[in-house]
Amino acid sequence: MAVTMGDASGVGPEIVLRRHASHGLGDVVVFGDLAVLRRGAELLGLDVELAAVALPVAASVAGAPLRVVDLGLLGADGLRPGQLDAAAGAASRAYVLAATGAALAGHVAGVVTMPMSKEATQLGDPGFVGHTELIAAACGVERYTMMLAADDLAVTHVSTHVALRQAIELVRRDRVRDVIELTHLALARGGRRPRIAVCGLNPHAGEHGLFGDEDERHIAPAVADAVAAGIDASGPLAADTVFHRAVHRREFDAIVCMYHDQGHAPMKLLAFEHGVNITVVLPIVRTSVDHGTAFDIAWTGQAFTGSLDAALRWAWRLSDEAPER
Amino acid sequence: MAVTMGDASGVGPEIVLRRHASHGLGDVVVFGDLAVLRRGAELLGLDVELAAVALPVAASVAGAPLRVVDLGLLGADGLRPGQLDAAAGAASRAYVLAATGAALAGHVAGVVTMPMSKEATQLGDPGFVGHTELIAAACGVERYTMMLAADDLAVTHVSTHVALRQAIELVRRDRVRDVIELTHLALARGGRRPRIAVCGLNPHAGEHGLFGDEDERHIAPAVADAVAAGIDASGPLAADTVFHRAVHRREFDAIVCMYHDQGHAPMKLLAFEHGVNITVVLPIVRTSVDHGTAFDIAWTGQAFTGSLDAALRWAWRLSDEAPER
Repeated sequence: MAVTMGDASGVGPEIVLRRHASHGLGDVVVFGDLAVLRRGAELLGLDVELAAVALPVAASVAGAPLRVVDLGLLGADGLRPGQLDAAAGAASRAYVLAATGAALAGHVAGVVTMPMSKEATQLGDPGFVGHTELIAAACGVERYTMMLAADDLAVTHVSTHVALRQAIELVRRDRVRDVIELTHLALARGGRRPRIAVCGLNPHAGEHGLFGDEDERHIAPAVADAVAAGIDASGPLAADTVFHRAVHRREFDAIVCMYHDQGHAPMKLLAFEHGVNITVVLPIVRTSVDHGTAFDIAWTGQAFTGSLDAALRWAWRLSDEAPER
Repeated sequence: MAVTMGDASGVGPEIVLRRHASHGLGDVVVFGDLAVLRRGAELLGLDVELAAVALPVAASVAGAPLRVVDLGLLGADGLRPGQLDAAAGAASRAYVLAATGAALAGHVAGVVTMPMSKEATQLGDPGFVGHTELIAAACGVERYTMMLAADDLAVTHVSTHVALRQAIELVRRDRVRDVIELTHLALARGGRRPRIAVCGLNPHAGEHGLFGDEDERHIAPAVADAVAAGIDASGPLAADTVFHRAVHRREFDAIVCMYHDQGHAPMKLLAFEHGVNITVVLPIVRTSVDHGTAFDIAWTGQAFTGSLDAALRWAWRLSDEAPER
């Protein structure tokens, strides 16, 4: 599994080092800058053995050095805690592209990403929006969705970072069907047939057209399309009870949400620190820690490392090659 | 405290009787039909002593009969489990109006309502929408909001049962300010100064206008108005983290939500069976069980009675006359 180092000024490389030092990261290869990791280990007083490797690499064994595909972009002086830095931003972008390429080539089972700084990356790439869009473009695909995962529940989104007014316009049969299908394919990789709930857009899923018509006009036909294609999808369901049904009654493995907060608010209530952010972008697996660069505490040894564990667990789970499922 | 009996065909009167028989309801007066309650107690095999009373009544004592303001609308044959019945619907409406009048007159500290059947009530009153609208009209006020409460958190709504598209149009400075103020006044009755979070409408509360302008145009000025009036209000805040902040970090006592599912989805995830539905309609206190008539199990002894406890607890809490705070 590839793990990108993230922005050298943020908590990403620190978390990778501390987590490896404390109890190993399993069969991973870090995509980053060896000089930064070396300097960082010194700074943190960690006894971490690092080894530069070239792809393809064999499976790792316990107690082995932490293997790094060294992109050689930053030197030891590239480690500037908390500083917004164009070079660090550009380098963090390159780690992601290199790891994505390795995944497309089949050298790694998937990619787990550590945080980038949007501001730092935009200094060199003004069009940079986020990891998800960067990876989708690198994969050459236009269909993708943002998935949030926690414990045994995954949630995907028809739209994310757009105004609510615009999100309503994006609730269209084709797009909803695509997101249902992407959700199915992502979770079916391990051979399962996930039970997918599809939320309505309006209160009570529109209550038969009483509160808005999008539920009947766009969502219901999309669910019918998915069912006809052999997918276990139900909906449109009232969005205010579907999380209860999934979490407490275990009726569903995944929930397709119509807009950002419909999925994000319940998921952040359920799993604030161990949530995982996943890009469902076929053909590769990509998961991410669900936090940012946290420049204010970078390289001070305070950053919480549990989100990396969760991101790695979901990456293996979604992959076909999981060594530890 | 007044407790309305609810629709005679539903679980309302059964829950009142069973809950009184098992461990008492405290200082309450039931507004309903004595003949139905008598027949119901027989049917359930409950040893419940009932007493017709006229207002005003003194405080009740433990072990006393269950006191009933008998409206004399239904006879014993009015108890028809699970049947949609115009007479039962009209009677359930009358209990609410009588209890509301008693609250306005100061004879009771507030009103706790058991479920009505919308369909049954509409047979006699086609314009009937719900408890909330009925009570607001009876109080002669136009400003009200639906509050959901669970444990130590209360959530109010700028709009509820309208299409999401229309809900966006209802996010206006005046209305948002009203809901903040109603939330404050409802929770301040006990002399507290509640900490109120106000949600944004768009993802990340619009991220400074990047995703929609309602947050800056309407919500921010409404919060500023409230703060200027001495209310402890903050916002607009990102709706996907505010519940986590309120529940896990205890930063807020109440959350003002911009639309139905923004408040309902997290609250039903937090408290599905012991949630309380509150009408914030000055000048009276009104809380409700958060379930319906459940015609399918009415008068079979199966209905869960815990929601009545929660509704009573919140009614006393919001009232100025709480005997058990």
